[in-house]
Amino acid sequence: MSVFTTKLAASSEASRSLLCVGIDPDPRLAPPSVVAQPDWVARFALGIVEATADLACAFKPNLAFFEALGDDGYRGLRALMAALPKDRLSIGDAKRGDVGSTAAAYARALFEVWGFDAATVNPYLGWDSLEPFLGYQDRGTIVLCKTSNPGSGDLQDLRTTWEGRDMPLYQVVARQAVGRNGARNLGLVVGATYPEQLAHVRELAPDMPILVPGVGTQQGDLEAAVAAGLDVQGGGILVNASRSVIYASTGDDWQAVARAAALDLRDRVNAMRQAERAEERVGATG
Amino acid sequence: MSVFTTKLAASSEASRSLLCVGIDPDPRLAPPSVVAQPDWVARFALGIVEATADLACAFKPNLAFFEALGDDGYRGLRALMAALPKDRLSIGDAKRGDVGSTAAAYARALFEVWGFDAATVNPYLGWDSLEPFLGYQDRGTIVLCKTSNPGSGDLQDLRTTWEGRDMPLYQVVARQAVGRNGARNLGLVVGATYPEQLAHVRELAPDMPILVPGVGTQQGDLEAAVAAGLDVQGGGILVNASRSVIYASTGDDWQAVARAAALDLRDRVNAMRQAERAEERVGATG
Repeated sequence: MSVFTTKLAASSEASRSLLCVGIDPDPRLAPPSVVAQPDWVARFALGIVEATADLACAFKPNLAFFEALGDDGYRGLRALMAALPKDRLSIGDAKRGDVGSTAAAYARALFEVWGFDAATVNPYLGWDSLEPFLGYQDRGTIVLCKTSNPGSGDLQDLRTTWEGRDMPLYQVVARQAVGRNGARNLGLVVGATYPEQLAHVRELAPDMPILVPGVGTQQGDLEAAVAAGLDVQGGGILVNASRSVIYASTGDDWQAVARAAALDLRDRVNAMRQAERAEERVGATG
Repeated sequence: MSVFTTKLAASSEASRSLLCVGIDPDPRLAPPSVVAQPDWVARFALGIVEATADLACAFKPNLAFFEALGDDGYRGLRALMAALPKDRLSIGDAKRGDVGSTAAAYARALFEVWGFDAATVNPYLGWDSLEPFLGYQDRGTIVLCKTSNPGSGDLQDLRTTWEGRDMPLYQVVARQAVGRNGARNLGLVVGATYPEQLAHVRELAPDMPILVPGVGTQQGDLEAAVAAGLDVQGGGILVNASRSVIYASTGDDWQAVARAAALDLRDRVNAMRQAERAEERVGATG
């Protein structure tokens, strides 16, 4: 275990949850009564955290939405990072990737300046570009593998030859990640919209944490994704929901409705975990 | 021509230069006398621009280095963006890539909040993830193709099947880019450290601007890269130098020495352009 996987296991245990709440502040989608106030980004982000902290094992601020707001966004992200519960995993969703010295600057920004427990990164530049992230052995580096968007196949599904074998590119990334995980601080991103590919990745990386976006607005099949992604301990996935939770209501009840959406999702995932366990028991005894 | 290619042609003509100066503020490398001052990021960045503006056709702030400095970095980048000469191309080196709605937020951050003329992006997530950038038809979207780092082959060189043909992944990216360039606002990144691959990309994308990093500290072969990358008009490349120019001296002469390094590089590139033209004339008449 690494600091990253230990913290993930502890926060998942404490919250009895595999839910990751993505925080994407967008003034066109957030409750108008909040957006009208000064420091709305912090108010909104902290309001979501307050409403869902006991139901989520991780929070995933998406840096794009903060950056798109300029100064207000950076101020809001600072307030959010200061307010996140210390016993929950914080994931900086930044999808960075660059050559060595630049990658080191990005890792510094995410792990030291912002203080995230983990960050998402892009593997296109190769593994030397990810080394500066992996060098932070007490943080998690979560590598894009098969992303949730419709066009993810443009490169990720291409048939590729790697070490003499033929496989889609995203499986090369999964295999390479397994080979680089000496410090146990790697994770992968696989979209809930591709449960079949998620099952392949789980097979290739039996005990690597997998961040699974795309269950809400992107309409991934939650049941299929959870069944495909769970590890043998009935964990190992972080089911991310962003818009479907945080923008569940734009009325004055936004916190209560966000909480209800998070609770529903947590409980549905937990019900599936129990069903999978029951099936395994039947399988083992039957 | 698009606004992007027109501005690139005009700035290259006005400066008689294909040089792009990368601005990567690093307190461990910058002149100590500058770093000791308040607002050193802005002082340093503006000092480099002042010293090299007539020699460079583009400036490329690398967002990682600003982000790693937190507030000081954002303040410095704001000052730099306000000071960049309007008749020079500004490239936000951010290498972003994310699914649709998030990519739209990154494009907004780079093109609207910061105001860059162009930005670098990562193709791993597929072309729907780049659409929000390409939708800004008056800006340039410069796609990573074959990057300059030693490990770039981990994915980019893998043999891949695309449209029934076998080719390395970076050539798939180049071919896909050519097919998506209806608005003429695309460019590619190919490292000077890989002149052979640069020649292949130029063949596949005869009139697409190519950003060529890696000639300085990364020790790419300048002559080979320029010969491989020039288009038939003797242009079409942006030869980027960052550390080898901006950290050419850490003494009080830092501006003069940075200028000398930029001048030398511009003139060497121009000499090769003339030599190539002369060779073509010989080829045409011989």
